Amino acid sequence: MSAQSPAVPVDLAERLSQFSELWSQKKIATFNDYEAKLAKLKGEFVWHTHEDTDELFLVVSGRLTIQLRDGDVVLGPGQLFVVPRGVEHCPRAEEETAILLLEPAGTLNTGDAGGPMTRPAENLA
Amino acid sequence: MSAQSPAVPVDLAERLSQFSELWSQKKIATFNDYEAKLAKLKGEFVWHTHEDTDELFLVVSGRLTIQLRDGDVVLGPGQLFVVPRGVEHCPRAEEETAILLLEPAGTLNTGDAGGPMTRPAENLA
Repeated sequence: MSAQSPAVPVDLAERLSQFSELWSQKKIATFNDYEAKLAKLKGEFVWHTHEDTDELFLVVSGRLTIQLRDGDVVLGPGQLFVVPRGVEHCPRAEEETAILLLEPAGTLNTGDAGGPMTRPAENLA
Repeated sequence: MSAQSPAVPVDLAERLSQFSELWSQKKIATFNDYEAKLAKLKGEFVWHTHEDTDELFLVVSGRLTIQLRDGDVVLGPGQLFVVPRGVEHCPRAEEETAILLLEPAGTLNTGDAGGPMTRPAENLA
């Protein structure tokens, strides 16, 4: 086994307990050139688009509204949704919501929009 | 939105209720050239290796033992593990266990091993 993948499972709840910052993606696993990232959301993000990649959202706890220009998608725990590349979207959460994100390594949280909420994903120790 | 991604979430529990077959991967979402697949496991699979890809396992319910040649990894609900490419492994579950698998489209369940348990992933209607 490589140093990147020690033979212990990654516990989502345990990893979520390690941070409280909102709108900051925390890397918890790498598979090929993709990453699994956790994030905690509350409030509204920014409208943005990823021109080069689809983005898979899986809700762990709470309730996530993915606003799309042609309607909202609402996800509860155990529900997932793929935002296709090129589709403008804006996540929103009324209550604090935890999500698992799956997308290529290096995908920036704000996509093409930039701005003050832009943050590179961080390793979660 | 494309026909492949209607703007409704995919509910893991609801999709799991749609099949009972063991050791058969059911495609529930596509992101880029990757697939999210559900499977129900009970008993022991076959030792095999994916030479070309890592494989992410996330346990939804039950308990999964991923046997590796240098030890076992045991995952409960909300725990994930990435089997690196080239690492021989053999899933085993004492009780019926539901998992979410993430890997490139076309990845065969038995990898290099072949044999009677080999099955292409199926679309879940």
